[in-house]
Amino acid sequence: MKNVTIIGVGLIGGSFALDIKTKYPNTTIYGIDNNEAHLEEAIALGVIDKSTSLNELSKSDLVIVAIPVDVTLDLLPKILDNISENTIVFDVGSTKENICLRVKNHPNRRNYLAAHPIAGTEFSGPRAAIKGLFQNKTNIICEVEETAFKLQEKALALFSDIGMRIRYMNPKAHDKHIAYVSHLSHISSFMLGKTVIEKEKNERDIFDMAGSGFESTVRLAKSSPAMWTPIFKQNKTNVIETLDKYINNLKHFKRLMEKDDFQSVYQEMESTNYIKQILNGIK
Amino acid sequence: MKNVTIIGVGLIGGSFALDIKTKYPNTTIYGIDNNEAHLEEAIALGVIDKSTSLNELSKSDLVIVAIPVDVTLDLLPKILDNISENTIVFDVGSTKENICLRVKNHPNRRNYLAAHPIAGTEFSGPRAAIKGLFQNKTNIICEVEETAFKLQEKALALFSDIGMRIRYMNPKAHDKHIAYVSHLSHISSFMLGKTVIEKEKNERDIFDMAGSGFESTVRLAKSSPAMWTPIFKQNKTNVIETLDKYINNLKHFKRLMEKDDFQSVYQEMESTNYIKQILNGIK
Repeated sequence: MKNVTIIGVGLIGGSFALDIKTKYPNTTIYGIDNNEAHLEEAIALGVIDKSTSLNELSKSDLVIVAIPVDVTLDLLPKILDNISENTIVFDVGSTKENICLRVKNHPNRRNYLAAHPIAGTEFSGPRAAIKGLFQNKTNIICEVEETAFKLQEKALALFSDIGMRIRYMNPKAHDKHIAYVSHLSHISSFMLGKTVIEKEKNERDIFDMAGSGFESTVRLAKSSPAMWTPIFKQNKTNVIETLDKYINNLKHFKRLMEKDDFQSVYQEMESTNYIKQILNGIK
Repeated sequence: MKNVTIIGVGLIGGSFALDIKTKYPNTTIYGIDNNEAHLEEAIALGVIDKSTSLNELSKSDLVIVAIPVDVTLDLLPKILDNISENTIVFDVGSTKENICLRVKNHPNRRNYLAAHPIAGTEFSGPRAAIKGLFQNKTNIICEVEETAFKLQEKALALFSDIGMRIRYMNPKAHDKHIAYVSHLSHISSFMLGKTVIEKEKNERDIFDMAGSGFESTVRLAKSSPAMWTPIFKQNKTNVIETLDKYINNLKHFKRLMEKDDFQSVYQEMESTNYIKQILNGIK
Protein backbone atom coordinates (compact mmCIF):
# COMPACT_ATOMS: atom_id res chain seq x y z
CA MET A 1 0.00 0.00 0.00
CA LYS A 2 1.42 3.29 -1.11
CA ASN A 3 -1.29 5.68 0.04
CA VAL A 4 -3.91 5.33 2.75
CA THR A 5 -6.58 7.90 3.62
CA ILE A 6 -8.18 7.99 7.05
CA ILE A 7 -11.50 9.84 7.17
CA GLY A 8 -12.04 10.82 10.81
CA VAL A 9 -8.70 11.03 12.62
CA GLY A 10 -10.06 10.16 16.07
CA LEU A 11 -9.59 7.21 18.42
CA ILE A 12 -10.31 4.46 15.86
CA GLY A 13 -9.07 6.16 12.69
CA GLY A 14 -5.95 7.34 14.48
CA SER A 15 -5.25 3.90 15.94
CA PHE A 16 -5.45 2.37 12.45
CA ALA A 17 -3.04 5.06 11.24
CA LEU A 18 -0.52 4.25 13.99
CA ASP A 19 -0.63 0.51 13.27
CA ILE A 20 -0.31 1.06 9.53
CA LYS A 21 2.72 3.32 10.08
CA THR A 22 4.32 0.57 12.16
CA LYS A 23 3.58 -2.31 9.80
CA TYR A 24 4.10 -0.48 6.49
CA PRO A 25 6.69 2.24 7.10
CA ASN A 26 6.71 3.28 3.44
CA THR A 27 3.02 4.08 3.27
CA THR A 28 1.91 7.71 3.28
CA ILE A 29 -1.09 8.34 5.49
CA TYR A 30 -3.50 11.12 4.55
CA GLY A 31 -6.24 12.42 6.80
CA ILE A 32 -9.63 14.06 6.31
CA ASP A 33 -11.59 15.50 9.21
CA ASN A 34 -14.21 18.25 9.45
CA ASN A 35 -12.60 19.24 12.76
CA GLU A 36 -9.63 21.33 11.61
CA ALA A 37 -8.03 21.27 15.08
CA HIS A 38 -8.11 17.46 15.16
CA LEU A 39 -6.48 17.34 11.75
CA GLU A 40 -3.65 19.62 12.85
CA GLU A 41 -3.27 17.72 16.10
CA ALA A 42 -3.09 14.40 14.24
CA ILE A 43 -0.30 15.76 12.04
CA ALA A 44 1.55 17.27 15.02
CA LEU A 45 1.32 13.96 16.91
CA GLY A 46 2.60 12.06 13.87
CA VAL A 47 -0.63 10.05 13.65
CA ILE A 48 -1.06 11.03 9.98
CA ASP A 49 1.39 12.51 7.47
CA LYS A 50 -0.76 15.13 5.74
CA SER A 51 -4.30 16.26 5.12
CA THR A 52 -6.16 15.68 1.88
CA SER A 53 -9.67 16.05 0.44
CA LEU A 54 -12.39 13.80 -0.98
CA ASN A 55 -11.51 14.60 -4.57
CA GLU A 56 -7.98 13.25 -4.06
CA LEU A 57 -9.25 9.83 -2.94
CA SER A 58 -8.55 8.09 -6.23
CA LYS A 59 -4.84 8.12 -5.34
CA SER A 60 -5.45 5.97 -2.25
CA ASP A 61 -5.13 2.20 -2.14
CA LEU A 62 -7.15 2.10 1.06
CA VAL A 63 -9.72 4.46 2.60
CA ILE A 64 -10.80 3.96 6.22
CA VAL A 65 -14.06 5.65 7.26
CA ALA A 66 -14.02 6.22 11.01
CA ILE A 67 -16.67 8.86 11.66
CA PRO A 68 -20.05 8.90 13.47
CA VAL A 69 -22.49 6.49 11.82
CA ASP A 70 -24.91 9.20 10.69
CA VAL A 71 -22.13 11.01 8.82
CA THR A 72 -21.05 7.71 7.27
CA LEU A 73 -24.55 7.29 5.80
CA ASP A 74 -24.20 10.64 4.07
CA LEU A 75 -20.58 10.45 3.10
CA LEU A 76 -19.96 6.85 2.03
CA PRO A 77 -21.76 7.19 -1.35
CA LYS A 78 -19.68 10.30 -2.09
CA ILE A 79 -16.51 8.49 -1.07
CA LEU A 80 -17.35 5.61 -3.40
CA ASP A 81 -17.95 8.17 -6.20
CA ASN A 82 -14.39 9.45 -5.84
CA ILE A 83 -12.20 6.35 -5.62
CA SER A 84 -10.26 4.40 -8.24
CA GLU A 85 -11.23 0.87 -9.24
CA ASN A 86 -8.44 -0.55 -7.08
CA THR A 87 -9.31 1.34 -3.92
CA ILE A 88 -10.75 -0.62 -1.00
CA VAL A 89 -12.92 1.36 1.42
CA PHE A 90 -14.04 0.07 4.80
CA ASP A 91 -15.97 1.72 7.61
CA VAL A 92 -15.75 0.87 11.31
CA GLY A 93 -19.23 1.83 12.53
CA SER A 94 -21.16 0.13 15.31
CA THR A 95 -24.28 -0.30 13.12
CA LYS A 96 -24.18 -2.18 9.83
CA GLU A 97 -27.70 -2.66 8.42
CA ASN A 98 -28.46 0.94 7.35
CA ILE A 99 -25.06 1.54 5.84
CA CYS A 100 -25.17 -1.67 3.78
CA LEU A 101 -28.63 -0.70 2.50
CA ARG A 102 -27.44 2.80 1.66
CA VAL A 103 -24.73 1.62 -0.77
CA LYS A 104 -26.47 -1.57 -1.93
CA ASN A 105 -26.93 -0.26 -5.46
CA HIS A 106 -23.89 1.98 -5.70
CA PRO A 107 -21.90 1.23 -8.87
CA ASN A 108 -18.77 0.88 -6.72
CA ARG A 109 -20.38 -1.30 -4.03
CA ARG A 110 -17.71 -3.95 -4.69
CA ASN A 111 -15.01 -1.52 -3.51
CA TYR A 112 -16.63 -1.33 -0.05
CA LEU A 113 -16.21 -3.70 2.91
CA ALA A 114 -18.59 -3.32 5.88
CA ALA A 115 -16.51 -3.78 9.05
CA HIS A 116 -16.85 -3.29 12.79
CA PRO A 117 -13.66 -3.67 14.79
CA ILE A 118 -14.68 -4.39 18.41
CA ALA A 119 -12.09 -2.15 19.99
CA GLY A 120 -11.92 1.23 21.62
CA THR A 121 -11.91 3.19 24.84
CA GLU A 122 -14.24 5.81 26.29
CA PHE A 123 -11.98 8.59 24.95
CA SER A 124 -12.04 10.34 21.59
CA GLY A 125 -9.98 12.51 19.26
CA PRO A 126 -6.49 11.90 17.76
CA ARG A 127 -4.85 12.07 21.18
CA ALA A 128 -6.89 8.98 22.16
CA ALA A 129 -5.29 6.89 19.36
CA ILE A 130 -3.38 3.86 20.66
CA LYS A 131 -0.76 1.75 18.90
CA GLY A 132 -1.71 -1.94 19.02
CA LEU A 133 -5.35 -1.23 19.90
CA PHE A 134 -6.58 -3.96 17.55
CA GLN A 135 -4.23 -6.74 18.68
CA ASN A 136 -6.31 -9.87 19.51
CA LYS A 137 -9.56 -8.00 18.97
CA THR A 138 -12.49 -9.22 16.86
CA ASN A 139 -13.39 -7.54 13.59
CA ILE A 140 -16.92 -8.27 12.40
CA ILE A 141 -17.30 -8.20 8.63
CA CYS A 142 -20.73 -8.07 7.04
CA GLU A 143 -21.83 -9.04 3.49
CA VAL A 144 -18.28 -10.07 2.59
CA GLU A 145 -19.59 -11.61 -0.64
CA GLU A 146 -20.55 -8.14 -1.88
CA THR A 147 -16.91 -7.00 -1.93
CA ALA A 148 -14.58 -7.77 -4.84
CA PHE A 149 -12.37 -10.68 -3.87
CA LYS A 150 -9.04 -9.00 -4.67
CA LEU A 151 -10.01 -5.96 -2.61
CA GLN A 152 -11.22 -8.11 0.32
CA GLU A 153 -7.79 -9.70 0.33
CA LYS A 154 -6.08 -6.31 0.76
CA ALA A 155 -8.22 -5.39 3.76
CA LEU A 156 -7.93 -8.86 5.31
CA ALA A 157 -4.13 -8.74 5.00
CA LEU A 158 -4.15 -5.47 6.98
CA PHE A 159 -6.49 -6.89 9.66
CA SER A 160 -4.27 -9.95 9.97
CA ASP A 161 -1.07 -7.85 10.13
CA ILE A 162 -2.44 -5.78 13.02
CA GLY A 163 -3.55 -8.90 14.92
CA MET A 164 -7.32 -9.02 14.47
CA ARG A 165 -9.58 -12.11 14.40
CA ILE A 166 -12.27 -12.03 11.73
CA ARG A 167 -15.89 -12.94 12.26
CA TYR A 168 -18.37 -12.95 9.35
CA MET A 169 -21.99 -12.02 9.97
CA ASN A 170 -25.01 -10.58 8.18
CA PRO A 171 -25.80 -6.92 8.95
CA LYS A 172 -29.19 -7.65 10.59
CA ALA A 173 -27.71 -10.20 13.01
CA HIS A 174 -24.78 -7.88 13.74
CA ASP A 175 -27.07 -5.01 14.74
CA LYS A 176 -29.31 -7.24 16.85
CA HIS A 177 -26.48 -8.83 18.83
CA ILE A 178 -24.29 -5.77 19.21
CA ALA A 179 -27.29 -4.05 20.86
CA TYR A 180 -26.93 -6.53 23.73
CA VAL A 181 -23.18 -6.70 24.18
CA SER A 182 -22.33 -3.08 23.46
CA HIS A 183 -25.16 -0.60 23.06
CA LEU A 184 -27.05 -1.67 26.20
CA SER A 185 -23.87 -1.48 28.30
CA HIS A 186 -23.47 2.14 27.30
CA ILE A 187 -27.03 3.08 28.27
CA SER A 188 -26.84 1.19 31.58
CA SER A 189 -23.65 3.05 32.36
CA PHE A 190 -24.96 6.48 31.30
CA MET A 191 -28.13 6.07 33.36
CA LEU A 192 -26.14 4.84 36.38
CA GLY A 193 -24.01 7.97 36.12
CA LYS A 194 -27.13 10.11 35.79
CA THR A 195 -28.82 8.53 38.82
CA VAL A 196 -25.79 9.13 41.01
CA ILE A 197 -25.17 12.68 39.72
CA GLU A 198 -28.82 13.59 40.43
CA LYS A 199 -28.36 12.43 44.01
CA GLU A 200 -25.10 14.33 44.25
CA LYS A 201 -26.74 17.66 43.40
CA ASN A 202 -27.79 18.02 46.98
CA GLU A 203 -25.08 16.01 48.62
CA ARG A 204 -21.94 16.88 46.77
CA ASP A 205 -19.56 14.88 48.84
CA ILE A 206 -20.78 11.35 48.28
CA PHE A 207 -18.17 10.74 45.62
CA ASP A 208 -15.40 10.27 48.15
CA MET A 209 -17.30 7.09 48.86
CA ALA A 210 -17.07 5.74 45.33
CA GLY A 211 -14.59 2.97 44.69
CA SER A 212 -13.21 1.05 41.74
CA GLY A 213 -16.47 -0.87 41.36
CA PHE A 214 -18.47 2.27 40.62
CA GLU A 215 -15.68 3.56 38.42
CA SER A 216 -15.68 0.44 36.28
CA THR A 217 -19.46 0.28 35.95
CA VAL A 218 -19.81 3.94 35.03
CA ARG A 219 -16.74 4.16 32.77
CA LEU A 220 -18.71 4.10 29.52
CA ALA A 221 -20.69 7.17 30.65
CA LYS A 222 -17.62 9.17 29.63
CA SER A 223 -18.24 8.22 26.00
CA SER A 224 -18.93 10.74 23.25
CA PRO A 225 -22.62 11.67 22.75
CA ALA A 226 -21.80 12.73 19.15
CA MET A 227 -20.71 9.18 18.40
CA TRP A 228 -23.41 7.34 20.37
CA THR A 229 -26.58 9.30 19.55
CA PRO A 230 -26.58 8.28 15.86
CA ILE A 231 -25.80 4.67 16.83
CA PHE A 232 -28.86 4.53 19.09
CA LYS A 233 -30.92 6.21 16.35
CA GLN A 234 -29.86 3.75 13.67
CA ASN A 235 -30.29 0.73 15.94
CA LYS A 236 -33.43 2.01 17.67
CA THR A 237 -35.59 -1.13 17.44
CA ASN A 238 -32.93 -3.49 18.75
CA VAL A 239 -31.77 -1.14 21.48
CA ILE A 240 -35.32 -0.61 22.75
CA GLU A 241 -35.75 -4.41 22.89
CA THR A 242 -32.63 -4.76 25.07
CA LEU A 243 -33.77 -1.88 27.29
CA ASP A 244 -37.17 -3.54 27.80
CA LYS A 245 -35.52 -6.77 28.90
CA TYR A 246 -33.00 -4.99 31.12
CA ILE A 247 -35.68 -2.87 32.82
CA ASN A 248 -37.81 -5.98 33.39
CA ASN A 249 -34.91 -7.79 35.01
CA LEU A 250 -34.25 -4.81 37.29
CA LYS A 251 -37.94 -4.61 38.24
CA HIS A 252 -37.98 -8.33 39.00
CA PHE A 253 -34.91 -7.97 41.23
CA LYS A 254 -36.59 -5.07 43.03
CA ARG A 255 -39.78 -7.08 43.53
CA LEU A 256 -37.79 -9.95 45.06
CA MET A 257 -36.23 -7.49 47.52
CA GLU A 258 -39.63 -5.96 48.33
CA LYS A 259 -41.01 -9.44 49.06
CA ASP A 260 -37.97 -10.19 51.26
CA ASP A 261 -37.23 -13.14 49.00
CA PHE A 262 -33.49 -12.98 49.51
CA GLN A 263 -33.04 -16.61 48.62
CA SER A 264 -34.13 -15.73 45.08
CA VAL A 265 -31.95 -12.59 45.17
CA TYR A 266 -29.02 -14.91 45.96
CA GLN A 267 -29.95 -17.23 43.10
CA GLU A 268 -30.27 -14.35 40.62
CA MET A 269 -26.69 -13.36 41.40
CA GLU A 270 -25.34 -16.89 41.56
CA SER A 271 -26.70 -17.82 38.15
CA THR A 272 -25.34 -14.56 36.70
CA ASN A 273 -21.87 -15.39 38.04
CA TYR A 274 -21.79 -17.60 34.91
CA ILE A 275 -20.62 -14.39 33.22
CA LYS A 276 -17.13 -15.30 34.55
CA GLN A 277 -16.91 -18.23 32.14
CA ILE A 278 -18.18 -16.08 29.32
CA LEU A 279 -15.71 -13.28 29.96
CA ASN A 280 -12.85 -15.78 30.15
CA GLY A 281 -14.02 -16.93 26.74
CA ILE A 282 -13.67 -13.38 25.35
CA LYS A 283 -9.99 -13.17 26.15
CA MET B 1 0.95 -4.64 67.97
CA LYS B 2 2.03 -8.10 69.00
CA ASN B 3 -0.98 -10.15 68.00
CA VAL B 4 -3.64 -9.51 65.40
CA THR B 5 -6.61 -11.75 64.61
CA ILE B 6 -8.34 -11.66 61.26
CA ILE B 7 -11.85 -13.12 61.27
CA GLY B 8 -12.63 -14.05 57.69
CA VAL B 9 -9.42 -14.64 55.73
CA GLY B 10 -10.82 -13.62 52.34
CA LEU B 11 -10.10 -10.74 49.96
CA ILE B 12 -10.39 -7.92 52.53
CA GLY B 13 -9.23 -9.75 55.67
CA GLY B 14 -6.34 -11.30 53.75
CA SER B 15 -5.31 -7.96 52.25
CA PHE B 16 -5.20 -6.40 55.74
CA ALA B 17 -3.07 -9.36 56.86
CA LEU B 18 -0.59 -8.84 54.02
CA ASP B 19 -0.24 -5.11 54.72
CA ILE B 20 0.15 -5.68 58.47
CA LYS B 21 2.88 -8.26 57.80
CA THR B 22 4.70 -5.75 55.65
CA LYS B 23 4.39 -2.79 58.02
CA TYR B 24 4.81 -4.66 61.33
CA PRO B 25 7.07 -7.66 60.62
CA ASN B 26 7.12 -8.71 64.29
CA THR B 27 3.37 -9.07 64.60
CA THR B 28 1.85 -12.55 64.65
CA ILE B 29 -1.29 -12.84 62.56
CA TYR B 30 -3.95 -15.32 63.61
CA GLY B 31 -6.91 -16.29 61.47
CA ILE B 32 -10.44 -17.54 62.08
CA ASP B 33 -12.66 -18.76 59.27
CA ASN B 34 -15.58 -21.18 59.15
CA ASN B 35 -14.23 -22.35 55.80
CA GLU B 36 -11.47 -24.77 56.83
CA ALA B 37 -10.03 -24.90 53.31
CA HIS B 38 -9.66 -21.10 53.20
CA LEU B 39 -7.90 -21.17 56.55
CA GLU B 40 -5.40 -23.77 55.35
CA GLU B 41 -4.93 -21.92 52.09
CA ALA B 42 -4.30 -18.64 53.93
CA ILE B 43 -1.58 -20.31 56.02
CA ALA B 44 -0.05 -22.03 52.98
CA LEU B 45 0.02 -18.71 51.09
CA GLY B 46 1.62 -16.96 54.05
CA VAL B 47 -1.33 -14.60 54.39
CA ILE B 48 -1.73 -15.51 58.09
CA ASP B 49 0.62 -17.27 60.52
CA LYS B 50 -1.72 -19.62 62.34
CA SER B 51 -5.34 -20.35 63.09
CA THR B 52 -7.01 -19.55 66.40
CA SER B 53 -10.49 -19.51 67.96
CA LEU B 54 -12.89 -16.95 69.46
CA ASN B 55 -11.97 -17.84 73.06
CA GLU B 56 -8.34 -16.91 72.38
CA LEU B 57 -9.24 -13.38 71.28
CA SER B 58 -8.23 -11.70 74.55
CA LYS B 59 -4.57 -12.16 73.51
CA SER B 60 -5.06 -9.97 70.46
CA ASP B 61 -4.31 -6.24 70.32
CA LEU B 62 -6.43 -5.92 67.18
CA VAL B 63 -9.29 -7.96 65.74
CA ILE B 64 -10.46 -7.36 62.17
CA VAL B 65 -13.91 -8.67 61.27
CA ALA B 66 -14.08 -9.25 57.51
CA ILE B 67 -17.03 -11.57 56.98
CA PRO B 68 -20.45 -11.23 55.29
CA VAL B 69 -22.54 -8.55 57.03
CA ASP B 70 -25.23 -10.99 58.25
CA VAL B 71 -22.60 -13.09 60.02
CA THR B 72 -21.09 -9.93 61.52
CA LEU B 73 -24.47 -9.11 63.10
CA ASP B 74 -24.45 -12.50 64.83
CA LEU B 75 -20.79 -12.70 65.67
CA LEU B 76 -19.72 -9.20 66.71
CA PRO B 77 -21.43 -9.33 70.16
CA LYS B 78 -19.67 -12.66 70.83
CA ILE B 79 -16.36 -11.22 69.69
CA LEU B 80 -16.78 -8.26 72.04
CA ASP B 81 -17.58 -10.74 74.86
CA ASN B 82 -14.20 -12.41 74.37
CA ILE B 83 -11.68 -9.58 74.07
CA SER B 84 -9.44 -7.85 76.61
CA GLU B 85 -9.96 -4.24 77.62
CA ASN B 86 -7.10 -3.16 75.35
CA THR B 87 -8.30 -4.92 72.22
CA ILE B 88 -9.62 -2.81 69.37
CA VAL B 89 -12.08 -4.53 67.02
CA PHE B 90 -13.17 -3.13 63.70
CA ASP B 91 -15.39 -4.56 60.96
CA VAL B 92 -15.20 -3.75 57.25
CA GLY B 93 -18.81 -4.30 56.18
CA SER B 94 -20.65 -2.39 53.46
CA THR B 95 -23.62 -1.60 55.76
CA LYS B 96 -23.18 0.26 59.03
CA GLU B 97 -26.57 1.12 60.56
CA ASN B 98 -27.69 -2.37 61.66
CA ILE B 99 -24.32 -3.33 63.05
CA CYS B 100 -24.00 -0.14 65.11
CA LEU B 101 -27.50 -0.72 66.49
CA ARG B 102 -26.68 -4.34 67.33
CA VAL B 103 -23.77 -3.46 69.63
CA LYS B 104 -25.11 -0.10 70.84
CA ASN B 105 -25.59 -1.35 74.39
CA HIS B 106 -22.80 -3.92 74.52
CA PRO B 107 -20.63 -3.40 77.63
CA ASN B 108 -17.55 -3.40 75.37
CA ARG B 109 -18.99 -1.04 72.75
CA ARG B 110 -16.03 1.28 73.27
CA ASN B 111 -13.66 -1.43 72.00
CA TYR B 112 -15.40 -1.45 68.61
CA LEU B 113 -14.83 0.86 65.63
CA ALA B 114 -17.34 0.76 62.76
CA ALA B 115 -15.36 0.99 59.52
CA HIS B 116 -15.88 0.53 55.80
CA PRO B 117 -12.74 0.54 53.68
CA ILE B 118 -13.81 1.37 50.11
CA ALA B 119 -11.55 -1.15 48.43
CA GLY B 120 -11.85 -4.53 46.83
CA THR B 121 -12.16 -6.47 43.62
CA GLU B 122 -14.83 -8.81 42.26
CA PHE B 123 -12.87 -11.84 43.55
CA SER B 124 -13.01 -13.58 46.91
CA GLY B 125 -11.10 -15.99 49.17
CA PRO B 126 -7.52 -15.75 50.53
CA ARG B 127 -6.05 -16.12 47.06
CA ALA B 128 -7.76 -12.82 46.15
CA ALA B 129 -5.83 -10.91 48.87
CA ILE B 130 -3.63 -8.13 47.47
CA LYS B 131 -0.72 -6.33 49.12
CA GLY B 132 -1.25 -2.55 49.02
CA LEU B 133 -4.98 -2.85 48.28
CA PHE B 134 -5.80 0.02 50.65
CA GLN B 135 -3.20 2.51 49.42
CA ASN B 136 -4.92 5.85 48.66
CA LYS B 137 -8.35 4.38 49.34
CA THR B 138 -11.04 5.93 51.54
CA ASN B 139 -12.00 4.37 54.86
CA ILE B 140 -15.37 5.49 56.19
CA ILE B 141 -15.61 5.46 59.96
CA CYS B 142 -18.98 5.72 61.67
CA GLU B 143 -19.84 6.81 65.24
CA VAL B 144 -16.17 7.43 66.00
CA GLU B 145 -17.17 9.10 69.28
CA GLU B 146 -18.47 5.76 70.56
CA THR B 147 -14.99 4.22 70.49
CA ALA B 148 -12.48 4.71 73.30
CA PHE B 149 -9.98 7.35 72.23
CA LYS B 150 -6.83 5.31 72.91
CA LEU B 151 -8.23 2.41 70.90
CA GLN B 152 -9.28 4.69 68.03
CA GLU B 153 -5.68 5.86 67.87
CA LYS B 154 -4.40 2.30 67.41
CA ALA B 155 -6.74 1.64 64.50
CA LEU B 156 -6.12 5.04 62.91
CA ALA B 157 -2.35 4.47 63.08
CA LEU B 158 -2.82 1.24 61.12
CA PHE B 159 -5.07 2.92 58.52
CA SER B 160 -2.53 5.70 58.12
CA ASP B 161 0.39 3.24 57.83
CA ILE B 162 -1.32 1.35 55.00
CA GLY B 163 -2.13 4.56 53.15
CA MET B 164 -5.85 5.14 53.74
CA ARG B 165 -7.72 8.45 53.87
CA ILE B 166 -10.29 8.69 56.65
CA ARG B 167 -13.83 10.00 56.24
CA TYR B 168 -16.19 10.30 59.24
CA MET B 169 -19.91 9.78 58.77
CA ASN B 170 -23.00 8.70 60.66
CA PRO B 171 -24.22 5.15 59.93
CA LYS B 172 -27.56 6.26 58.43
CA ALA B 173 -25.89 8.63 55.96
CA HIS B 174 -23.28 6.00 55.14
CA ASP B 175 -25.92 3.41 54.23
CA LYS B 176 -27.96 5.87 52.19
CA HIS B 177 -25.04 7.14 50.11
CA ILE B 178 -23.22 3.85 49.67
CA ALA B 179 -26.45 2.47 48.15
CA TYR B 180 -25.91 4.90 45.25
CA VAL B 181 -22.19 4.65 44.68
CA SER B 182 -21.72 0.95 45.39
CA HIS B 183 -24.80 -1.20 45.90
CA LEU B 184 -26.67 0.09 42.82
CA SER B 185 -23.60 -0.47 40.59
CA HIS B 186 -23.59 -4.12 41.61
CA ILE B 187 -27.26 -4.63 40.76
CA SER B 188 -26.98 -2.75 37.45
CA SER B 189 -24.04 -4.98 36.56
CA PHE B 190 -25.70 -8.24 37.67
CA MET B 191 -28.87 -7.45 35.72
CA LEU B 192 -26.86 -6.46 32.63
CA GLY B 193 -25.10 -9.82 32.83
CA LYS B 194 -28.43 -11.59 33.26
CA THR B 195 -30.02 -9.80 30.29
CA VAL B 196 -27.17 -10.74 28.00
CA ILE B 197 -26.93 -14.34 29.27
CA GLU B 198 -30.67 -14.83 28.68
CA LYS B 199 -30.22 -13.68 25.09
CA GLU B 200 -27.22 -15.95 24.72
CA LYS B 201 -29.18 -19.08 25.62
CA ASN B 202 -30.43 -19.28 22.07
CA GLU B 203 -27.54 -17.61 20.33
CA ARG B 204 -24.45 -18.88 22.06
CA ASP B 205 -21.92 -17.15 19.91
CA ILE B 206 -22.69 -13.50 20.51
CA PHE B 207 -19.94 -13.23 23.10
CA ASP B 208 -17.20 -13.07 20.47
CA MET B 209 -18.75 -9.69 19.82
CA ALA B 210 -18.26 -8.37 23.34
CA GLY B 211 -15.45 -5.91 23.90
CA SER B 212 -13.77 -4.20 26.78
CA GLY B 213 -16.77 -1.91 27.30
CA PHE B 214 -19.09 -4.79 28.10
CA GLU B 215 -16.39 -6.42 30.21
CA SER B 216 -15.95 -3.31 32.34
CA THR B 217 -19.68 -2.72 32.80
CA VAL B 218 -20.42 -6.32 33.74
CA ARG B 219 -17.33 -6.90 35.91
CA LEU B 220 -19.17 -6.60 39.23
CA ALA B 221 -21.53 -9.42 38.18
CA LYS B 222 -18.67 -11.78 39.08
CA SER B 223 -19.06 -10.76 42.73
CA SER B 224 -19.92 -13.20 45.50
CA PRO B 225 -23.69 -13.68 46.14
CA ALA B 226 -22.87 -14.82 49.71
CA MET B 227 -21.34 -11.43 50.42
CA TRP B 228 -23.87 -9.30 48.55
CA THR B 229 -27.23 -10.88 49.47
CA PRO B 230 -26.98 -9.86 53.16
CA ILE B 231 -25.82 -6.36 52.15
CA PHE B 232 -28.93 -5.86 50.00
CA LYS B 233 -31.06 -7.32 52.82
CA GLN B 234 -29.64 -4.97 55.44
CA ASN B 235 -29.79 -1.94 53.17
CA LYS B 236 -33.12 -2.85 51.58
CA THR B 237 -34.90 0.51 51.85
CA ASN B 238 -32.04 2.56 50.46
CA VAL B 239 -31.25 0.09 47.69
CA ILE B 240 -34.89 -0.02 46.56
CA GLU B 241 -34.89 3.79 46.43
CA THR B 242 -31.83 3.79 44.15
CA LEU B 243 -33.36 1.06 41.96
CA ASP B 244 -36.55 3.10 41.55
CA LYS B 245 -34.58 6.12 40.41
CA TYR B 246 -32.36 4.07 38.11
CA ILE B 247 -35.34 2.26 36.51
CA ASN B 248 -37.11 5.60 35.99
CA ASN B 249 -34.06 7.07 34.29
CA LEU B 250 -33.81 4.04 31.99
CA LYS B 251 -37.53 4.26 31.15
CA HIS B 252 -37.17 7.97 30.39
CA PHE B 253 -34.24 7.27 28.05
CA LYS B 254 -36.29 4.57 26.33
CA ARG B 255 -39.26 6.93 25.93
CA LEU B 256 -37.01 9.56 24.34
CA MET B 257 -35.83 6.95 21.83
CA GLU B 258 -39.40 5.82 21.13
CA LYS B 259 -40.42 9.44 20.44
CA ASP B 260 -37.38 9.84 18.14
CA ASP B 261 -36.24 12.69 20.36
CA PHE B 262 -32.56 12.10 19.73
CA GLN B 263 -31.66 15.66 20.60
CA SER B 264 -32.71 14.89 24.18
CA VAL B 265 -30.92 11.53 24.01
CA TYR B 266 -27.78 13.49 23.12
CA GLN B 267 -28.34 15.90 26.01
CA GLU B 268 -28.90 13.07 28.49
CA MET B 269 -25.48 11.68 27.60
CA GLU B 270 -23.74 15.02 27.38
CA SER B 271 -24.86 16.09 30.84
CA THR B 272 -23.83 12.71 32.24
CA ASN B 273 -20.34 13.14 30.78
CA TYR B 274 -19.89 15.30 33.90
CA ILE B 275 -19.04 11.98 35.55
CA LYS B 276 -15.51 12.47 34.11
CA GLN B 277 -14.86 15.35 36.51
CA ILE B 278 -16.26 13.34 39.37
CA LEU B 279 -14.17 10.28 38.62
CA ASN B 280 -11.06 12.43 38.33
CA GLY B 281 -11.94 13.66 41.80
CA ILE B 282 -11.92 10.09 43.15
CA LYS B 283 -8.35 9.43 42.15
